[in-house]
Amino acid sequence: MDSTTVSAHAALRRFLSETRRHSLDLAAPLSDADASAQSMPDASPAKWHLAHTTWFFETFVLATHEPSYQVFDPGYGFLFNSYYEAAGPRLRRDRRGLLTRPALADILAWRAHVDDALERALNGLPETAHALITLGCHHEQQHQELLLTDILHLFSENPLAPVYAENAPFPAAGANAHDWLTHPGGIVSIGHTGDSFAFDCEMPRHPELLQPFALGSRLVTNAEWAAFIDDGGYRTPTLWLSDGWAWVEQNDVTAPLYWQREDGSWSTMTLAGRQPVDAAAPATHVSYFEADAFARWAGARLPRETEWEAMPENPALSQMFGACWQWTQSAYTAYPGFRTAAGAVGEYNGKFMCGQFVLRGSSCATPAGHARPTYRNFFYPHQRWQFTGVRLAKDI
Amino acid sequence: MDSTTVSAHAALRRFLSETRRHSLDLAAPLSDADASAQSMPDASPAKWHLAHTTWFFETFVLATHEPSYQVFDPGYGFLFNSYYEAAGPRLRRDRRGLLTRPALADILAWRAHVDDALERALNGLPETAHALITLGCHHEQQHQELLLTDILHLFSENPLAPVYAENAPFPAAGANAHDWLTHPGGIVSIGHTGDSFAFDCEMPRHPELLQPFALGSRLVTNAEWAAFIDDGGYRTPTLWLSDGWAWVEQNDVTAPLYWQREDGSWSTMTLAGRQPVDAAAPATHVSYFEADAFARWAGARLPRETEWEAMPENPALSQMFGACWQWTQSAYTAYPGFRTAAGAVGEYNGKFMCGQFVLRGSSCATPAGHARPTYRNFFYPHQRWQFTGVRLAKDI
Amino acid sequence: MDSTTVSAHAALRRFLSETRRHSLDLAAPLSDADASAQSMPDASPAKWHLAHTTWFFETFVLATHEPSYQVFDPGYGFLFNSYYEAAGPRLRRDRRGLLTRPALADILAWRAHVDDALERALNGLPETAHALITLGCHHEQQHQELLLTDILHLFSENPLAPVYAENAPFPAAGANAHDWLTHPGGIVSIGHTGDSFAFDCEMPRHPELLQPFALGSRLVTNAEWAAFIDDGGYRTPTLWLSDGWAWVEQNDVTAPLYWQREDGSWSTMTLAGRQPVDAAAPATHVSYFEADAFARWAGARLPRETEWEAMPENPALSQMFGACWQWTQSAYTAYPGFRTAAGAVGEYNGKFMCGQFVLRGSSCATPAGHARPTYRNFFYPHQRWQFTGVRLAKDI
Amino acid sequence: MDSTTVSAHAALRRFLSETRRHSLDLAAPLSDADASAQSMPDASPAKWHLAHTTWFFETFVLATHEPSYQVFDPGYGFLFNSYYEAAGPRLRRDRRGLLTRPALADILAWRAHVDDALERALNGLPETAHALITLGCHHEQQHQELLLTDILHLFSENPLAPVYAENAPFPAAGANAHDWLTHPGGIVSIGHTGDSFAFDCEMPRHPELLQPFALGSRLVTNAEWAAFIDDGGYRTPTLWLSDGWAWVEQNDVTAPLYWQREDGSWSTMTLAGRQPVDAAAPATHVSYFEADAFARWAGARLPRETEWEAMPENPALSQMFGACWQWTQSAYTAYPGFRTAAGAVGEYNGKFMCGQFVLRGSSCATPAGHARPTYRNFFYPHQRWQFTGVRLAKDI
Repeated sequence: MDSTTVSAHAALRRFLSETRRHSLDLAAPLSDADASAQSMPDASPAKWHLAHTTWFFETFVLATHEPSYQVFDPGYGFLFNSYYEAAGPRLRRDRRGLLTRPALADILAWRAHVDDALERALNGLPETAHALITLGCHHEQQHQELLLTDILHLFSENPLAPVYAENAPFPAAGANAHDWLTHPGGIVSIGHTGDSFAFDCEMPRHPELLQPFALGSRLVTNAEWAAFIDDGGYRTPTLWLSDGWAWVEQNDVTAPLYWQREDGSWSTMTLAGRQPVDAAAPATHVSYFEADAFARWAGARLPRETEWEAMPENPALSQMFGACWQWTQSAYTAYPGFRTAAGAVGEYNGKFMCGQFVLRGSSCATPAGHARPTYRNFFYPHQRWQFTGVRLAKDI
Repeated sequence: MDSTTVSAHAALRRFLSETRRHSLDLAAPLSDADASAQSMPDASPAKWHLAHTTWFFETFVLATHEPSYQVFDPGYGFLFNSYYEAAGPRLRRDRRGLLTRPALADILAWRAHVDDALERALNGLPETAHALITLGCHHEQQHQELLLTDILHLFSENPLAPVYAENAPFPAAGANAHDWLTHPGGIVSIGHTGDSFAFDCEMPRHPELLQPFALGSRLVTNAEWAAFIDDGGYRTPTLWLSDGWAWVEQNDVTAPLYWQREDGSWSTMTLAGRQPVDAAAPATHVSYFEADAFARWAGARLPRETEWEAMPENPALSQMFGACWQWTQSAYTAYPGFRTAAGAVGEYNGKFMCGQFVLRGSSCATPAGHARPTYRNFFYPHQRWQFTGVRLAKDI
Repeated sequence: MDSTTVSAHAALRRFLSETRRHSLDLAAPLSDADASAQSMPDASPAKWHLAHTTWFFETFVLATHEPSYQVFDPGYGFLFNSYYEAAGPRLRRDRRGLLTRPALADILAWRAHVDDALERALNGLPETAHALITLGCHHEQQHQELLLTDILHLFSENPLAPVYAENAPFPAAGANAHDWLTHPGGIVSIGHTGDSFAFDCEMPRHPELLQPFALGSRLVTNAEWAAFIDDGGYRTPTLWLSDGWAWVEQNDVTAPLYWQREDGSWSTMTLAGRQPVDAAAPATHVSYFEADAFARWAGARLPRETEWEAMPENPALSQMFGACWQWTQSAYTAYPGFRTAAGAVGEYNGKFMCGQFVLRGSSCATPAGHARPTYRNFFYPHQRWQFTGVRLAKDI
Repeated sequence: MDSTTVSAHAALRRFLSETRRHSLDLAAPLSDADASAQSMPDASPAKWHLAHTTWFFETFVLATHEPSYQVFDPGYGFLFNSYYEAAGPRLRRDRRGLLTRPALADILAWRAHVDDALERALNGLPETAHALITLGCHHEQQHQELLLTDILHLFSENPLAPVYAENAPFPAAGANAHDWLTHPGGIVSIGHTGDSFAFDCEMPRHPELLQPFALGSRLVTNAEWAAFIDDGGYRTPTLWLSDGWAWVEQNDVTAPLYWQREDGSWSTMTLAGRQPVDAAAPATHVSYFEADAFARWAGARLPRETEWEAMPENPALSQMFGACWQWTQSAYTAYPGFRTAAGAVGEYNGKFMCGQFVLRGSSCATPAGHARPTYRNFFYPHQRWQFTGVRLAKDI
């Protein structure tokens, strides 16, 4: 084994160990009941996230590439497969909250079993398996963010408004002034290239032709959102997409998710319990529909994902990462030349390329090291339980 | 205090203490997660049953009649009121499974707090409050049965088919032969009278005029139900009520709830996990629709509740109590002269007198001492997660 | 053929001819489009009523008992069977409004074809067939009332509020004073007997034991209903059945069907278009839920159907017939000894004995000669597009 | 008035007159009932199309620009506004089939009234109004296609499978061989420019950068679609988008809309009634989900709309127009620099830019003169009652 390999193995081992440890840290404040509940079909129990990410390693790495590995419990595959049709049948998504057994403690034992096996097997595994371990870590990081947003949603449904952690992440206020940063357009390179990790949907890197445009220097703030509300934004159908207005009317939407008005002041649910809305902080938990309507009200538009990616190195742009995911007007679709991976992991991204919009950047709940300029997150236009926000754009 | 009063107080104290203790015993096999999950809107989490029955005592007895009582947590009223409009707003029924907090341990602490307060206050409370304690105990007994059937439903949704308890109650096989026990008809007295406890809907005792009829000597068995299935019972629309057939088609119903066929044999979910169907045991977890169709297939009919009540003393009738609740063809409605109680507890029964059918007897899950010949249980015709069964009747 | 037979044949021929003619009269104001539309799944197009009643005669009388009869169009059976499982598959009920063909003119031609055949065959048909013709006439009378109420519902959905006929039936105002007419209770005979026609569900005549009670001398008026509204009747949950309150909240019910308030005055949709509400006329288009809540608000209750039937001969009671059907608190269920007819017509009533309430009397839309004291109409508790009203009762 | 103006007026007058006449021709085979029924919320009654297009001219041209114009019936605006929020409230879309009045004859009278007024006013109207008349004609042409596809859907729901017209349009069989036509990629100009009419969403013309690709020379045929079915295409989840597979399962989809298999042969519903499926004709009435799955099964992909538009002049490509609309993988979104028109007509396209996919080309039901290479049709991915088909593409 040459020294490059040794060092690569050590790096992978560390990435794996840190990623797996971080999930446990995130679960630490949760009771068995907290970890088992599912507050809506879009969300999953924390326990399920802990289990599913473990199932990924067990199924695609250990059971496939480590002949001596003993599956921890053969019944778990049905329970913790998410959507991999090629990996067999699975529990209906909206039934995940009914799995009060296995208990959280059982899942933690399973995690330890799989972690041990990975630790022991790692050096001897083929390159393909190492790539799958890397994928599994990035996959687990995605679920770490979901674990937090799903817990926030669950706790928001509890009239007692429980606190997950007093020092939990939240989108912090940034610079006050809003500027327009311009780009002259022209041919730009979009998408990932090189040896570092990226999901299949970020590739291949390819040229795109842009028209001149400008991006807002920071995210839309809560103060600006309150002005939109006060100006009747949620009662003016001509500001909205047709589907958006139907969503507003059907769900009686009048403010971002979690906002409540009492005695003239807005509060919002956070991972630290219910808190006053911070006027200077970025508005978050807004749907694409709301983002689009806000932009129209503001005389602007949402950025295209290519515009966003063409700009992020600009130091005058703040809050590109670490505050809120930023809705773009780009439908989530395949780059020219896109190819899915072979086998079950090929179901990772391509089959979701319908009806969803791309979000760029990252949020306060994104694990350290998971963000990059080419990253493409995606959600349906009505969804808003993630830390989603708005950066404006305009033609110039 | 005269000796009658002393003895009445002692009896009430014992009833209260035994009832409250029994709920704890029923909850003992459950984890925090088990106790917090809600498997369908009709069911409630075990924790909720433990809390709601406690709320009943706190709200209607202690908060009303014991001036020095300190409410344990003022936020609990909103969470654990079931349907008492007069007692204020409350959590939507289908959201009960989202209450991962308060934890099971917190609810048990609340129970202890209320039990202590009741224990200390009991002798000094007015007669009205004693009546409410008695009502609260019977109310809690009802929830004890629901706790078991709700847990059974929850565990039935778990592909791992967890065991609640190896020695949990189940409807036991009875006598094999089926006879017809006849009644000549005429005027009979129906309903409760006297000093012992009964719910308002069992009163007033009043005369009813019956035609001659016969009741089956035992409940319909699983063997008989399997014959109904094999004869195409679930595929023959003319056997079914119109609403029943729509229910069969919409839900693709082919057997009693929990039955699964594998390799030609039926199994069913029980509180002791998944078990082979016992041919000699009474068929259970059947809806009114199924009960009615079965009776038609068998050339018989379901009994009227007055017929059932006119017969139960007959020693040749078996399984009247303790096996399965028995569907009657009687809609749940008011007896002539029915009056609801004043105040919030007046909402106990009357407001449900629409669309439901009366079941008579009791089941294997009914707490000891809770059954009586005048008891009127009631469910909607499609519901079948209770231990419901069938006793046939016919005109003669 | 003896003279009794001759006269019976003549009477049947006249009944048939008048009934068939009346349907045509009712359809006369309707366009092809009016006659083809279905405004909700509970309602049927007028054309469908005209066709279905014809199908009844063709299928159960001519095709069965008249060997030389040629079915008019073999495809019509699938289209115009309502719910007779034994008569084969049929169009989904909620798709009846999609049958723009056959045209109204085609259906009228079919009617003429069937009428001719019945006319020619009548004398030679066996007694069984004569009984089916009689049944078919009564069946058609039921559909005549439905045709009117379905058209009213259709027109109520049209913002232009079309007029069906200026002189169309409506529930007329009656005596002003409201008295209580008492009955001492005791054993009464309930149900139909004798040679005249009645539906199977009205039989057998049997004794029932009543407690003393009183019936209101007239129906509840619109003025009284407006007082109920003004007193917050639709906003007071404790007045309502549990299912009723859920219905009020889900459908945002605030007044009887068709009522609209403009500038402080109520109007209602009628067969003569939108009209001011007549304070002295009986309140109509109310659901069982509303009827029950109103009665509770008024300190009374709804009558039992046996109480209603024990009283109708009393001349001090007004509006028993010809104004509005009167909700009773009796679930629609089988009389002791009830037997369904053999064959497909046995599906006529029995299979609906679940979840519906009995209404007694008749309405302004009931054809002349169709009403009788033993008649049992039935609807679900939320339905209110019939001419349904309220007569109060109370215990004494 | 100079001669250019005279000739422009004459051309507009002819376009208007021919367009209005063509709608009447399309409605000629329909009865009043046919023209009034709505078979699903996505479809509208033929009468509604005839009325709504008339409302467009009355509201945006005559009422706005011709001071002497008398609105035909002030109640019609509420009935026949489609979705223009700025033009006031309107009937719920799913209630359009309840408008049995005004009758078809009334709508035809309204059309004549408006046509007369337009004819008389045309020369004197300002340029803006002329542009709105042109827009109104193109708008009416869109509704002409919808009228046909909506009638086809209505008739497909009728078990009698009525014939709209024996010589009605259908997608004709084309060349047999399938070739791949390649394009080298590079910068291409996309979108409409110049004086001729185009919808706002086709503009502005702008450059796009393409990668090399190939387009199929003809549409996918019914024979090829049958092979997809026979190969288990509708039973293989890995061929489908995630939302597509959910749609297949929920709706039990097994073939294109209208296909029925009897005795091993496929038939389909057409405007000429039910007909055998023509193996050589292009497959039609397929959803985006099906188109995408078929392409994946065929080892190809759907074209991007820019690829499609870059190619249509190539004479080796057949069936670009006049057979079936061709699904592209492009979400319907704004071109760079897109601006909506001012006023109510600005709601024409922009507010639908969410969740829909672009279709290119035209179909057998598209009116003559309505198609052009830059045209962007759009539907939701599950919709398939239009004449939608598939042209394959691939990367090279």
